[in-house]
Amino acid sequence: METTGYRRAVGIDFGGTSVKAAVVAEDGRIEAQTSFDTATAPSGAAWLDAVAAALERLGLNPSSLKDEIEGIGIGVPGFVDFERGFVHDLTNVPGWKAVWLNRLVEERFGIPARADNDVNAMALGESTFGAGRHYRHAVFVTVGTGVGGALLINGQLYRGAHSMAGEIGHLSIDLNGPTSPEGRGGLEQYVGNRRLIARTVSLIREGRASILCELVEGNLDALTPRIIAQAARQGDALSREIFEFAADCLATAFASTAYLIQPEAFIVGGGVARSGEVLFEPLRARLRQRLSPHFADRIVVKPAQLGHNAGVVGAAILAFQSHPAPEATPTEQPH
Amino acid sequence: METTGYRRAVGIDFGGTSVKAAVVAEDGRIEAQTSFDTATAPSGAAWLDAVAAALERLGLNPSSLKDEIEGIGIGVPGFVDFERGFVHDLTNVPGWKAVWLNRLVEERFGIPARADNDVNAMALGESTFGAGRHYRHAVFVTVGTGVGGALLINGQLYRGAHSMAGEIGHLSIDLNGPTSPEGRGGLEQYVGNRRLIARTVSLIREGRASILCELVEGNLDALTPRIIAQAARQGDALSREIFEFAADCLATAFASTAYLIQPEAFIVGGGVARSGEVLFEPLRARLRQRLSPHFADRIVVKPAQLGHNAGVVGAAILAFQSHPAPEATPTEQPH
Repeated sequence: METTGYRRAVGIDFGGTSVKAAVVAEDGRIEAQTSFDTATAPSGAAWLDAVAAALERLGLNPSSLKDEIEGIGIGVPGFVDFERGFVHDLTNVPGWKAVWLNRLVEERFGIPARADNDVNAMALGESTFGAGRHYRHAVFVTVGTGVGGALLINGQLYRGAHSMAGEIGHLSIDLNGPTSPEGRGGLEQYVGNRRLIARTVSLIREGRASILCELVEGNLDALTPRIIAQAARQGDALSREIFEFAADCLATAFASTAYLIQPEAFIVGGGVARSGEVLFEPLRARLRQRLSPHFADRIVVKPAQLGHNAGVVGAAILAFQSHPAPEATPTEQPH
Repeated sequence: METTGYRRAVGIDFGGTSVKAAVVAEDGRIEAQTSFDTATAPSGAAWLDAVAAALERLGLNPSSLKDEIEGIGIGVPGFVDFERGFVHDLTNVPGWKAVWLNRLVEERFGIPARADNDVNAMALGESTFGAGRHYRHAVFVTVGTGVGGALLINGQLYRGAHSMAGEIGHLSIDLNGPTSPEGRGGLEQYVGNRRLIARTVSLIREGRASILCELVEGNLDALTPRIIAQAARQGDALSREIFEFAADCLATAFASTAYLIQPEAFIVGGGVARSGEVLFEPLRARLRQRLSPHFADRIVVKPAQLGHNAGVVGAAILAFQSHPAPEATPTEQPH
């Protein structure tokens, strides 16, 4: 890859299923992208090899990375100590416990590396180039297999005292709710992908009528939030009820979040959120019911805009931030 | 009052029952204090007259206030737009709706005035001179008639997008809980003074044995959180159960708050909190149960230290902040 007049970085979106990598320009454009299966590179060493191969597929020269990109940013699905570049553990990826990820990547590739929680990376992407770019105070939420969150406060990602803040998926919406390693009644226990599907299947098995049975040709194992959303749009009462329920659970946690930090906006992405208005319409209505007008009148709920790309774009922004633009740091320039 | 070598300000703690005013030195010392009944000064004009009389009782000369104090800070029990000095409304004080309080006070007394929510004022006091002074990220909670909160983020009070953040009393701990103008299942619906007393009375009326009946000589209307705490310390099972319940409700909201913003500490004050270890011990235990060790190991729960004085001291700090010390603003000095 040739040297260009603008800065570029590599963003890595480390997911439970696949690892995506992209060359991202400073203006947010994705210039090249690739991926590999998470399962094929389980350990730190195998993962670094897979990343090296990915960098070559992206057209980068491993021996001159320094001249081609500013650094590598990595969004990982778990608890990260951002300041120290230390991964405590990854929720759905075995073998990643107590890893000094920044240091590993820097030693292997000779360029700055910055790891952060994947939802923080998504939030950086959305707040810089997506649905969050007009806000100084916003909450970013992903609703997919789990529920993740990140906070923008005074225009900056806020990571809390030990860089684990934003875990909206663990907010309790019922003090006597189901127990998990994270407490009781956590939002994620109600509205994760699998929970919503399980709830749907159980209602169908109780004998509730629904067009979902036709849509999956009788195979309830094939149910996905996307199919339930499709049925809801077609007016299926059961499917609408599922989204009303998910909306009400989300609204409960959003109302608590609003009372606590009063953001300007909630930006919602992830698989379940891609269901669109069948989720967003009841979510907005129920959030309003659960807030005093002082708060309800001053808050918006919007879908994320960058979709699957938010992770790699946001991760690349981490790399740009770890290595400020020359204009921004005159003291580093001789003239 | 003579001019001294250090700065002073007046702090006003505007409560539902009484209005306290004090002359506070820059190091947090209270040099003089007085108060008047809230009910005797219901309107803005009568309130200003009562404040003028209080200033005289404090030994200040109304015609030379400018030479004697830096300004007046006011903590009020309700929704305040801090930046604009505008009081939306006060929860338990009728007649205070849509009031430009800073401007009223400045016009009357000719010195800078700064109004803020009363719990923000308490938090400023505690974070500057009390239990919060070693933390950069902390949550301040008052548990009394209602439940209020304030947030310290990066060493600064955080007021949210429209200066109403910190309302931990409205965090929902049960999505199907009791309805209020602020939503459903708000913490305050469970652990305010009156709620705890009502719960106690109802258990006694159901026939539960308790030494409380003796302590109030059969007059259940005389029950207070202080008496229930006394009984709990004496081993009264019913009273302990009441505090276990309050602790569990608080722990649910604290766990949600910890997951969202990961503070270093919760600093808890107010009438119910003055019950001491009968509350704090189960609160710490239940918070730990409701958090992943990543969070539980990194958080402390401490009682507030300044007691009834936190409000006036914190309000005075608002005034000092509105009028920075000369050393801190060299551009305002000719040399």
